[in-house]
Amino acid sequence: MNSDRYYSTKARKMESSKIREISKIIAERDIISLAGGMPSPDSFPIQVVSELSEQLLEEEGAAALQYGTTTGYKKLREAIADRLNQNFDTSVDAENILVTSGAQQALYLVGKVFVERDDEVVVEAPTYASILQILQELEADVRDVRLEDDGFSVEELERYLENEGDPKLSYFVPTFQNPSGITTDLKKRRKLVDLANEHDFLIVEDDPYHQLRYSGGNVPPIYSIDGHRRTIYVGTLSKLLAPGIRVGWIVARREFIDKLQLAKQPIDLCTNVFSQHLAYRYLKEDIVDRQIEKIKDLYRAKRDHMLDALREFVPERVGWTSPEGGMFIWLTLPEGIDAEEMFQDALDDGVAYVPGSIFYGNSPKKNTLRLNFTFVEENEITEGVKRLGKLIERRMD
Amino acid sequence: MNSDRYYSTKARKMESSKIREISKIIAERDIISLAGGMPSPDSFPIQVVSELSEQLLEEEGAAALQYGTTTGYKKLREAIADRLNQNFDTSVDAENILVTSGAQQALYLVGKVFVERDDEVVVEAPTYASILQILQELEADVRDVRLEDDGFSVEELERYLENEGDPKLSYFVPTFQNPSGITTDLKKRRKLVDLANEHDFLIVEDDPYHQLRYSGGNVPPIYSIDGHRRTIYVGTLSKLLAPGIRVGWIVARREFIDKLQLAKQPIDLCTNVFSQHLAYRYLKEDIVDRQIEKIKDLYRAKRDHMLDALREFVPERVGWTSPEGGMFIWLTLPEGIDAEEMFQDALDDGVAYVPGSIFYGNSPKKNTLRLNFTFVEENEITEGVKRLGKLIERRMD
Repeated sequence: MNSDRYYSTKARKMESSKIREISKIIAERDIISLAGGMPSPDSFPIQVVSELSEQLLEEEGAAALQYGTTTGYKKLREAIADRLNQNFDTSVDAENILVTSGAQQALYLVGKVFVERDDEVVVEAPTYASILQILQELEADVRDVRLEDDGFSVEELERYLENEGDPKLSYFVPTFQNPSGITTDLKKRRKLVDLANEHDFLIVEDDPYHQLRYSGGNVPPIYSIDGHRRTIYVGTLSKLLAPGIRVGWIVARREFIDKLQLAKQPIDLCTNVFSQHLAYRYLKEDIVDRQIEKIKDLYRAKRDHMLDALREFVPERVGWTSPEGGMFIWLTLPEGIDAEEMFQDALDDGVAYVPGSIFYGNSPKKNTLRLNFTFVEENEITEGVKRLGKLIERRMD
Repeated sequence: MNSDRYYSTKARKMESSKIREISKIIAERDIISLAGGMPSPDSFPIQVVSELSEQLLEEEGAAALQYGTTTGYKKLREAIADRLNQNFDTSVDAENILVTSGAQQALYLVGKVFVERDDEVVVEAPTYASILQILQELEADVRDVRLEDDGFSVEELERYLENEGDPKLSYFVPTFQNPSGITTDLKKRRKLVDLANEHDFLIVEDDPYHQLRYSGGNVPPIYSIDGHRRTIYVGTLSKLLAPGIRVGWIVARREFIDKLQLAKQPIDLCTNVFSQHLAYRYLKEDIVDRQIEKIKDLYRAKRDHMLDALREFVPERVGWTSPEGGMFIWLTLPEGIDAEEMFQDALDDGVAYVPGSIFYGNSPKKNTLRLNFTFVEENEITEGVKRLGKLIERRMD
């Protein structure tokens, strides 16, 4: 029986996420992985989750186990809105919020609702790999704009827009970006909103790490500058509570939310209701704020540890970012060293990273790579960076 | 700002699930709802979930809160396979299983992987409304085959296949069907497998209610007859544990599972990991079997209660099914009474049902409607059916 003939055209073209593939290889070997994008298990408030679950089941067990609405648990949507307004001086309400099964689903829904084959979509170069997977599935026309130390290249974006660029959507991770760790400064955020207004395109702001700032001063999210008129903001509890409970959300104009919930109905009817109730209790009682302080202390130390190790063990000709928050550091190797080609040797040496090329919509910079500092222990960070430094040194000879 | 111009063609055509819309109307009024498809909150093992959650968080909290693989928690997949093999004398293993965010997502993934615009897809008439929503989104060419008391009309399916019918996929809910409550008998199941082999199409078997049999003898699922060569089997814990935890699964050939997990990656990365661990513990310790017995006792009484009420309060010229399990009874009103048109009056009289027309891919039978007997209390079943009976009587005058 030949299975292939049954597949849709879409299914024939599907490719696995490279990061998921790398994770599989690593899981089978004894390797220090600086590759994945996972939070530290030490960041999970297990005891808190246990207590909240118990209370929840005792007080509202039947509601927490039943089907829910597609837009999401009303009290959770209100709590998310309250929290955003408090943190960012905005005025969104529950009607502007759709709860999703993680931020990943939020991005999928945005793609489904807004992107058509051949639509131009602007992304940063490099950008989050999963958005590229989604845009590829939708056969969008991906246009990338180079990332500088303080955010996207305004010059490059303007040049594209003036040369008959006609984007419908743009996608940014402006704060502690995945993969680069770079934060777009306030001036550039304002500029982006101006350009979006002038050229009439939407902005998707993916903001999973905003609360995880370890140094430097706060920069407001783009949606708070724009007044969520043309910004679609994506948030998640994956890094502030735990990814296993799959709770994310979209903040947008009401009519967009209505369309997005229609798109969600056939996908999974509703987000896990038990998780939504748990998330509500976690947000409402301000437990989240106490937990965030703990997570920041944990990750600040790990980031500093990795930066120290890079200074100690990695040749001077290699460049790296010094992120003020988030989970990742981005390395730029001397021209001519291909991080993808070097990957097999790294595994043999017992260290893994993600080759930077997978984070580019077009023309990948092959001499780049991404390191994660949140998942592994501090002594492993040191040992992993040491192994990587030695490998790069050999390559430079 | 005109939002419409941003939407994809797909998004412009999206329609809300009629049942979800009806549920919204009902929630706002004091109405006895025989409309929805929800389990009774009395069927939820709240105490069990509480104990399992506590144990789980204590013993494996970090794993249950972390990201998981897209295919699903290995031990859960093994437990599902074991259970299926034990119940149905089959030989599937974990590699044949993909865990999904509820059975709804399973159907969405099957659509995404196998159905292309204009592909012919055979469904029962009537059939589960959500599959019609999915097939409409995919612009499939839906071909429906009339349902008889013992399953699909073999004659009608054969006629279609012989007259140049070229289906790629077929979709059946052969056991206690939603919406009709009808069970396809063994002879017809075998016939379907023969026809699928002869005409080379796939069978999707959606089987959420199999374990909920209140009378009559067991009929094996189609996948156990076919040996899951061309049957894609969809299961769920929504009716055996709780829908709020969103755990479903697909059983299929390994290469199909691989494609389906690729299709799942961009949608939500992985199914809620906490729920998967919970589900594993629930299945593994055979708690599920004790709970199923309780649910069956609860629902058997409710079904009998509704059948009694129908005999007592509904005019003789109305026909209805007498399901041996599941959650639904299907009414056929005298020709000329339009259940959709009657719906507003029913709400005014304080009772709700689902008009049968939404369950048809083509040429709806407007004199049909679906009643649910699991969600409401027994006294409400009686009162609801009484109200409905009076209304029908008035219409027949």
